[in-house]
Amino acid sequence: MAERLVVIGGDAAGMSAASQARRRRNRDDLEIIAFERGHFTSYSACGIPYWIGGVVDGPDALVARDPQTFREKHAIDVRTRHEVVAIDLDKREVVARDLDRNKETRTGFDQLVYAIGAVPVRPGWPGVDARGVFGVQTLDDGAAVREYIEAEKPRTAVVVGAGYIGIEMAEALQNHGLGVVVLEKSDQPMSTVDPDMGALVRTSMEKLGIVVHTGETVTALKTKDGKVAAVETDNTTYPADIVVLGLGVRPNTALAKDAGLPLGATTNAVVTDQRMRVVGHDGIWAAGDCVQSIHRLTHEPVHIPLGTHANKQGRVAGVNIGGGYATFPGVIGTAVTKVCELEVARTGLREVDAEKAGFAYITASVESTNRAGYMPGARPMTVKLIAEKISGRLLGAQIVGTTEAAKRIDGLAIALWNGMTVEEMTGLDLGYAPPYAPVWDPILIAARKATEKLAQ
Amino acid sequence: MAERLVVIGGDAAGMSAASQARRRRNRDDLEIIAFERGHFTSYSACGIPYWIGGVVDGPDALVARDPQTFREKHAIDVRTRHEVVAIDLDKREVVARDLDRNKETRTGFDQLVYAIGAVPVRPGWPGVDARGVFGVQTLDDGAAVREYIEAEKPRTAVVVGAGYIGIEMAEALQNHGLGVVVLEKSDQPMSTVDPDMGALVRTSMEKLGIVVHTGETVTALKTKDGKVAAVETDNTTYPADIVVLGLGVRPNTALAKDAGLPLGATTNAVVTDQRMRVVGHDGIWAAGDCVQSIHRLTHEPVHIPLGTHANKQGRVAGVNIGGGYATFPGVIGTAVTKVCELEVARTGLREVDAEKAGFAYITASVESTNRAGYMPGARPMTVKLIAEKISGRLLGAQIVGTTEAAKRIDGLAIALWNGMTVEEMTGLDLGYAPPYAPVWDPILIAARKATEKLAQ
Repeated sequence: MAERLVVIGGDAAGMSAASQARRRRNRDDLEIIAFERGHFTSYSACGIPYWIGGVVDGPDALVARDPQTFREKHAIDVRTRHEVVAIDLDKREVVARDLDRNKETRTGFDQLVYAIGAVPVRPGWPGVDARGVFGVQTLDDGAAVREYIEAEKPRTAVVVGAGYIGIEMAEALQNHGLGVVVLEKSDQPMSTVDPDMGALVRTSMEKLGIVVHTGETVTALKTKDGKVAAVETDNTTYPADIVVLGLGVRPNTALAKDAGLPLGATTNAVVTDQRMRVVGHDGIWAAGDCVQSIHRLTHEPVHIPLGTHANKQGRVAGVNIGGGYATFPGVIGTAVTKVCELEVARTGLREVDAEKAGFAYITASVESTNRAGYMPGARPMTVKLIAEKISGRLLGAQIVGTTEAAKRIDGLAIALWNGMTVEEMTGLDLGYAPPYAPVWDPILIAARKATEKLAQ
Repeated sequence: MAERLVVIGGDAAGMSAASQARRRRNRDDLEIIAFERGHFTSYSACGIPYWIGGVVDGPDALVARDPQTFREKHAIDVRTRHEVVAIDLDKREVVARDLDRNKETRTGFDQLVYAIGAVPVRPGWPGVDARGVFGVQTLDDGAAVREYIEAEKPRTAVVVGAGYIGIEMAEALQNHGLGVVVLEKSDQPMSTVDPDMGALVRTSMEKLGIVVHTGETVTALKTKDGKVAAVETDNTTYPADIVVLGLGVRPNTALAKDAGLPLGATTNAVVTDQRMRVVGHDGIWAAGDCVQSIHRLTHEPVHIPLGTHANKQGRVAGVNIGGGYATFPGVIGTAVTKVCELEVARTGLREVDAEKAGFAYITASVESTNRAGYMPGARPMTVKLIAEKISGRLLGAQIVGTTEAAKRIDGLAIALWNGMTVEEMTGLDLGYAPPYAPVWDPILIAARKATEKLAQ
């Protein structure tokens, strides 16, 4: 009889695992059942703000593979609108509720992939459950925001939290002609980069007409007839016909906890080994936004919910379930985002991370351009490096620019991944031609400046 | 008394050396004299095709620092229109001819930087010295082409050689409304990439209306009244009111040879150590397009004339002359170019290089996109990897795309520089967001495919 793999969660991590397992083991050898609470499988959650903003079509365009394709082409029995409500590790069964028929069934498994992602942080403010208050995490969330905008014609929006999603949503709502206020507790937007880089982001947002208030804490949402009407902070009150929460996400691990799977003390995310096997539980795997990863610089567990990690981890789990061998090598915190007119990128540690981890470091920031200065389309770009004192090893990098800037972080990420020193980096053989870079690429200029600062 | 540094050649390498030396040693400690045959210093030779094509202004925009700035701000005695005609190593003197006054002077030196670049290859065809036949290497060359176009109003152009410069010049001439034929001896344009990638380049050139003939060898140039009129090949004759030679360059080392400086047996370029000191000659330095470099993969000497190496080598020489310590770590053959609508990039070894060096290898090519497929501006991109069998180490990479493609080579170059295997590369933490990359960056997809091929 075929072994049975049950996958909980039909997005990037879960379906990557299922697909990889299927590639290596046919249906006579491995039966695969995947439960997904929502309507969609394998979609790009990162594309949702662009869908809401009208930049891309949706939701179909955001779906890489739909349930029917999985069923027909990959022999994966995808059951959408099925929420797994319990995992019984002793009996090796999951309990799934059919949300449309409101019926529960038990399904046995030999192997299990836990991949139900993350849930938006939703503080306990009075009024937070009113209509017109949205987190943006799933395609169903995206559809709900779009419907609300169409039906209710909101004119003012408040976005709480100025991280990636918050800023992307602010821009998306502005595309719809709404007046947008962004509220952020810390001193600058984009606290995923250092404050000096965050200040550049703030300027760009304000240039677009988005109102940014930092250092303000939301205390309550005011409602009228069950709909949100305003956001109250420790400072003042902002009228709001729609409120979007961009307060980050937390790993979706209630189910794992109930089942007795190990959760990280600092991350509250599922703990796996490098093959994405849940520690201490043979045949139980986890991947994606619900697991913790190891940061390669600090060796600490971190929770970095990103589609790129989810896909890689899902693939690794699937290869291993399929009888192959693959490991997930950890993360270094690389991220890129489009913030209004700006491209913002980071990798490795921010200054605050470096301090917390106990590194002594120097920083070097340079202004350069994406192309040779004399070429049409040459635009300014700021590159900041953080390097360990004495050793000179690259610890972190951040880039802010307007065009052909963000993806330069990849080179810095690969240098950091390999433990390069900034001095070694000054000699790197990078691509040069006037349409693509000055003769000293901004990365090289930054490495030179960091090298000089280390020598001081 | 101050030591005297004499620099021969006032472009990237020479003036970088001079500037770095000056930063570390003031004029009381080090006198610096730089001889330059042409009118300009520190200019971007790579920008010349864009100037000729009318994409950028020139020549001033292409000059990073003019002679007056060097004299006044950096206390570097730049003497333009002065050609050094001999180096006397015994007396430690150079003989320089003032080209405008036709006068020779001898100048003593304590330290010497040899940085007179490369000269375009100019075959001995009948008619090659006719008016209307141009190499494009210096700003003075660029000015000559522009003047000729304006004065003679040529209608047909033949470009001989379909390398970087040849193709860039073909496009530049097309911008002027000329009918352009490109003749190339080998089977595909851009022999700096593998033929399968070169075929993509050919298609792009032809789409733009440039006529490409490969596998044809030029035998003679036909002239009329001292001006070029046609190009004769082993196949047929092409009318040509102007001919541009894009046959590559060779190191400008006649002067070095006469002086007894060591030249590489395979490269005919000056041999230096890692600090850019000419081997066996204390106080004599060389940098830029006239020196050979060590290829980090094959450990063989190579001659790769590129502004980025020239600048780095000049800086290294200057730091060392200034009393500091710096080394040039060698090259891996990274290059990017814009070929009509295409972005073309390469690093490491081509298939033919890998074979010649004795590597057993696999290749993997993938088609992907620069951005998430559903985003506006998503365009196709081909990534090809060459990896060593058994070890899986990356040996080379090539990219052809239309936008946000070429500079992705930097990440591959840094991976290769660090000896990463394609399997390790599948786990790299690269920047992902829909405006910048699919959730699996093309680099990662290529690494996965290469990993799979290695396992077969």
